[in-house]
Amino acid sequence: MNLYKPGLHILATFSAAPQVLTEMQQCKALFEKLILELELSKVGETYYSFDGGGFTATVCLTESHAAIHTWPEFSKATFDVFLSNFNKDNSEKVREFYDKTINYFNATDIQVHELMR
Amino acid sequence: MNLYKPGLHILATFSAAPQVLTEMQQCKALFEKLILELELSKVGETYYSFDGGGFTATVCLTESHAAIHTWPEFSKATFDVFLSNFNKDNSEKVREFYDKTINYFNATDIQVHELMR
Repeated sequence: MNLYKPGLHILATFSAAPQVLTEMQQCKALFEKLILELELSKVGETYYSFDGGGFTATVCLTESHAAIHTWPEFSKATFDVFLSNFNKDNSEKVREFYDKTINYFNATDIQVHELMR
Repeated sequence: MNLYKPGLHILATFSAAPQVLTEMQQCKALFEKLILELELSKVGETYYSFDGGGFTATVCLTESHAAIHTWPEFSKATFDVFLSNFNKDNSEKVREFYDKTINYFNATDIQVHELMR
């Protein structure tokens, strides 16, 4: 059995105002800013907006991924960020990405899980 | 507080043979087959192979996402599949996607988490 532990994955399901849950481009701008600030390495992304509704997005990183899915009709969203520790411990970057995203959305009713994978 | 529950997310960290953890195109073919069989709706994807190493991939679905990251040098991988229940209960599809992926990799030492988000 190999003891390599990939790293920290934080998953949240939260409530937020419907408006911010429809603003895909602003969310993309936030993620771009965080990727730059945290010196992460993006290798691809998908941002897809539903007609008159929420959006779904995945960002593929060499360090792993981030994903967000929103349901403004229910004032709900899920958010994931997972960074592996292949070259160094990225746990603090996971927490910073998470905290800044939760703050951006003014999230409430947060159900959060932290998994050390 | 809104009671909408997005759906089931299964996360696994597992061991597998290094060879299968480098075969990105075969993994992509598996995911394509599962997306078709399970009648999921893909809106984008990223598959990125590391030189002489593993791969990292995210598949963005209208139903949410799947993601895989492999470290053949450690015989390790992580796999996630999350499908929301917006139009109908997709929990059984999550389990089928998960089971078929785990079988494909002949995964061992599986640490699995099921989150109803």
